Amino acid sequence: MTPGRPVPPPLANPIPPAPAGSEAGIRAAAYGAVSGDSGLVPLTVARRAPKPDDVEIAIDFCGLCHSDVHATRGEWGGQTYPLVPGHEIVGTVSRTGSNVTDFAVGDRVGVGCMVDSCRECESCLDGLEQYCENGMTGTYGAKDRRNGDAITQGGYSSSIVVDRRYVLRVPDSLDPAAVAPLLCAGVTTFSPLRHFDVEEGDVVGVVGLGGLGHMAVKLAKAMGAKVVVFTTSESKVAAALELGADDVVLSRDGAAMAAANRTIDLIIDTVAAPHDLNPFFRTLRVDGALFQLGLPSDAMPPVNPGALIRRRIAYAGSLIGGIAETQEMLDFCAEHGVVADIEVVAAGQLNEAYDRMVAGDVKYRFVLDTSTLQAAAEEADA
Amino acid sequence: MTPGRPVPPPLANPIPPAPAGSEAGIRAAAYGAVSGDSGLVPLTVARRAPKPDDVEIAIDFCGLCHSDVHATRGEWGGQTYPLVPGHEIVGTVSRTGSNVTDFAVGDRVGVGCMVDSCRECESCLDGLEQYCENGMTGTYGAKDRRNGDAITQGGYSSSIVVDRRYVLRVPDSLDPAAVAPLLCAGVTTFSPLRHFDVEEGDVVGVVGLGGLGHMAVKLAKAMGAKVVVFTTSESKVAAALELGADDVVLSRDGAAMAAANRTIDLIIDTVAAPHDLNPFFRTLRVDGALFQLGLPSDAMPPVNPGALIRRRIAYAGSLIGGIAETQEMLDFCAEHGVVADIEVVAAGQLNEAYDRMVAGDVKYRFVLDTSTLQAAAEEADA
Repeated sequence: MTPGRPVPPPLANPIPPAPAGSEAGIRAAAYGAVSGDSGLVPLTVARRAPKPDDVEIAIDFCGLCHSDVHATRGEWGGQTYPLVPGHEIVGTVSRTGSNVTDFAVGDRVGVGCMVDSCRECESCLDGLEQYCENGMTGTYGAKDRRNGDAITQGGYSSSIVVDRRYVLRVPDSLDPAAVAPLLCAGVTTFSPLRHFDVEEGDVVGVVGLGGLGHMAVKLAKAMGAKVVVFTTSESKVAAALELGADDVVLSRDGAAMAAANRTIDLIIDTVAAPHDLNPFFRTLRVDGALFQLGLPSDAMPPVNPGALIRRRIAYAGSLIGGIAETQEMLDFCAEHGVVADIEVVAAGQLNEAYDRMVAGDVKYRFVLDTSTLQAAAEEADA
Repeated sequence: MTPGRPVPPPLANPIPPAPAGSEAGIRAAAYGAVSGDSGLVPLTVARRAPKPDDVEIAIDFCGLCHSDVHATRGEWGGQTYPLVPGHEIVGTVSRTGSNVTDFAVGDRVGVGCMVDSCRECESCLDGLEQYCENGMTGTYGAKDRRNGDAITQGGYSSSIVVDRRYVLRVPDSLDPAAVAPLLCAGVTTFSPLRHFDVEEGDVVGVVGLGGLGHMAVKLAKAMGAKVVVFTTSESKVAAALELGADDVVLSRDGAAMAAANRTIDLIIDTVAAPHDLNPFFRTLRVDGALFQLGLPSDAMPPVNPGALIRRRIAYAGSLIGGIAETQEMLDFCAEHGVVADIEVVAAGQLNEAYDRMVAGDVKYRFVLDTSTLQAAAEEADA
């Protein structure tokens, strides 16, 4: 157990591990929060026996997303505890339901931010499950409507069971630990780049250079774009260039921003704190767009409609990506050799990693090695 | 002259009327402002002799746009006086320059918000002269760079001289007075409807039912869309339905707005006063867009990025339309029998008309009959 933290209760209805060949559910080792201020502690989580369409996955790695911090700390409100976060999951198929023909035991697979959606609405039928009209089922902290409204529990865990329709095929050529962040940070930036049809010669601006921002740089470069990083930190200039950015603009430098006037086709804004978008609109060309991906908890400064009107600019939002698009992104990354820059951590380092994420001290994504969970869970049970 | 108003000076360098067949410029009768608080008074305005590419137009009608009120009253700052407003011009070709082969004397033509642009930048070459990177030349109050930086003077005038590239062909089948507002209000709403590819079966929301809003309703209906008008005034419900709207939603009625949740594909927002857009975003479907066309002088309330993110919604601006698109709009209106609903006024009624516009008391556009100008100008000269 983590020193100084209380020994946590297991999750509701823990199920003992199923013996090999069994059709029972299993009890997975996990790390999660038991309250908004508990930090992350060892837990066990019940995973259902695979239903006919289910894939049981032995998780190898799970990325740490900033959303995980907000959710486990209850910063978005309405959180049910205990909560095992994690929606950047890479693992290996360990069992499959009777209807599953597209995945076999031993396949390397991934799970992103969704484990279900209604499958019937226009968005779902269009492959835009993330915009499901009846609400997609998040990988953690969501009511699992097809499984008795159990609260979903995420990937800081040794195992997960997911309907085959929400399981991704992870190309074997990519480092599985570095693939994990593609499942959220990757597709969240890939989707608006694709939606805007970024191609050779386009100029893409990236605001903020964290987990999402660094993926936006890599993906836009792989699409053939010229990439300009906007950052407030002089300290990030070298890092941006190292990632492949063609240019870096210090967004607090009025002269540098003025020089960037009307030079950008598309901006991917990854900053989740309130910030003034109007200076960025002025860097866009006619018919340019700014996609905001981060959701600040406080109000953004007002938009000047004149900035939009004078160049037919669109200020848009975008949420992760659909399942088919996530697969397309993974295949694109395999083709172009794109993965995240990561730092692998053990279960016992998760709380420290969270503090470092909040401080912006990571290049660029932490990834949990889930082989360290089992030991921790056994310790908790002791 | 208007009782109670000072006899105004003629515009700089008035030129005596050219005799028929002459190659000289002319002195046109006009109505304009001589200061921010002068109101509109009789004036004369010098029009250049047609250069090789110029078309001289005897103006028949000119629409009154809300911009005219702001500009003549100096509400946007930086105004040069005297100022003759008017950029919804319909008239008849009276002389042509030697290079002009596409227009002949007697042709019915129109002029909108632009009389020139650089013709060299990417926007101009793309037919998006309204977004000219070097700044388009407005029909009034702008420096005319190809004509000695003279300040352009608009259509509340008996005559105007405009380069053939910025002159539109007005279909003979349409009432010329009712066509005038198409040159600004028409194309300003047509352009975003076309940019969004509105077609049969789409649902278009129109916010505000003034000059622009009523054109948006007519044009969207002619494109085959279902049209929903959002208004704050119960008094406009019947009028909206009369114009062809399929539905009307009172935007201050929370329950009605909630019932409109996720029902609209595209919103054309014509309101030029600050207003909260977030309730309108919630009425949009996935991949919906809201185009704001009016530019409030005060700040808009903040946009909630979550509203954009959760449905990949775009909040965009749009400015009039390009020259080719304006012609396309006029031809579309001829094909579908669309014109503005107008109230024709004489020169002596302009100030009263302005007051009524500010009060929202017009259905839906005033149009000046320029045949009443000559008499007024002669009176001023007396």
